[in-house]
Amino acid sequence: MAEAMRATEHQHSYIHNNTKADYLKRLRRIEGQARGLQRMVEEEQYCIDILTQVSAMTKALQSVALGLLDEHMTHCVVDAARHGGPEAEVKIKEASEAIARLVRS
Amino acid sequence: MAEAMRATEHQHSYIHNNTKADYLKRLRRIEGQARGLQRMVEEEQYCIDILTQVSAMTKALQSVALGLLDEHMTHCVVDAARHGGPEAEVKIKEASEAIARLVRS
Amino acid sequence: MAEAMRATEHQHSYIHNNTKADYLKRLRRIEGQARGLQRMVEEEQYCIDILTQVSAMTKALQSVALGLLDEHMTHCVVDAARHGGPEAEVKIKEASEAIARLVRS
Amino acid sequence: MAEAMRATEHQHSYIHNNTKADYLKRLRRIEGQARGLQRMVEEEQYCIDILTQVSAMTKALQSVALGLLDEHMTHCVVDAARHGGPEAEVKIKEASEAIARLVRS
Repeated sequence: MAEAMRATEHQHSYIHNNTKADYLKRLRRIEGQARGLQRMVEEEQYCIDILTQVSAMTKALQSVALGLLDEHMTHCVVDAARHGGPEAEVKIKEASEAIARLVRS
Repeated sequence: MAEAMRATEHQHSYIHNNTKADYLKRLRRIEGQARGLQRMVEEEQYCIDILTQVSAMTKALQSVALGLLDEHMTHCVVDAARHGGPEAEVKIKEASEAIARLVRS
Repeated sequence: MAEAMRATEHQHSYIHNNTKADYLKRLRRIEGQARGLQRMVEEEQYCIDILTQVSAMTKALQSVALGLLDEHMTHCVVDAARHGGPEAEVKIKEASEAIARLVRS
Repeated sequence: MAEAMRATEHQHSYIHNNTKADYLKRLRRIEGQARGLQRMVEEEQYCIDILTQVSAMTKALQSVALGLLDEHMTHCVVDAARHGGPEAEVKIKEASEAIARLVRS
């Protein structure tokens, strides 16, 4: 039981402590970009300038997603593959579906 | 001078008042998604779940961008084309570049 | 009647003759990339190398799409806006939908 | 030596025989779409219709890429992870870079 809980806990803490702070910082900046966009719309700034900011924000989000995905594969997928059994297949399927959502969004 | 200022003012207020409130609401929701992502990273939630939220947020942002672009073309580009002169060409070039940034982001 | 037919014909020939040859050349190269991918799969080349070629081909296709869209807006949309009437609105709606398909694909 | 060659051969033939025929069929269809686009440009068909075909072709290409990537991770990445050593890390890095190219293209 304690074993299982630790296993679960381990699965979740795949984000390394040194990168966690970095992701939080990038997501706070993205939150700031969302607020900046509201101000631009509020002040009726020029549409093309707003769109430029939306593109920058989308790129920042994508970059966070690609980083998280890389960490997920490096830790979670590789661990599952090493432990063997059907878990690896489940993890790959999950990752593939997440990649498809990213590519199509 | 007053003429020019009014022209500029008109150019900027291309977002209709009834859609402006809608954009602000959608951008506030996107800001909320950015905060939700920070909480998920903070709590070390499962990476795939975080990526699902990132995809949802990216789609929401894209949808705002496509709406703004449509309004921009309906008002700003069409107006410029009607007034004639080189302005229309400038507007189309600007819009094309914004579209390219969206497609590539 | 002859007038109307010529108008329709004009609408279709929005691709300038000097750019038409360029588009055909780029599309032939894209067709060649599709054949190259078949050879790579046939020869069971390394997956990552095949994916690199798919990304290059996708970028080439996107670039053709953005060029066609720019020409379409410069000629067709601007013409419709100048002629006035509901046609401009129809053209903008059509272009916006095409842009949305490009951004989401 | 023979060992090494077999290992290399194994690495390359990650595409299962039953899916290889399917990929070739899909890529032939994509090649046909590229030829169809040339005909549309040649005949100066309506730009929006050409763009619709480009979007369909891009989606078909993306779908092939996502399938290849899934197979690559299921076989190549999982195998590397099971064998242990630095190979897994190299494979993940390679896959992450391929995913980034797909997401950004």
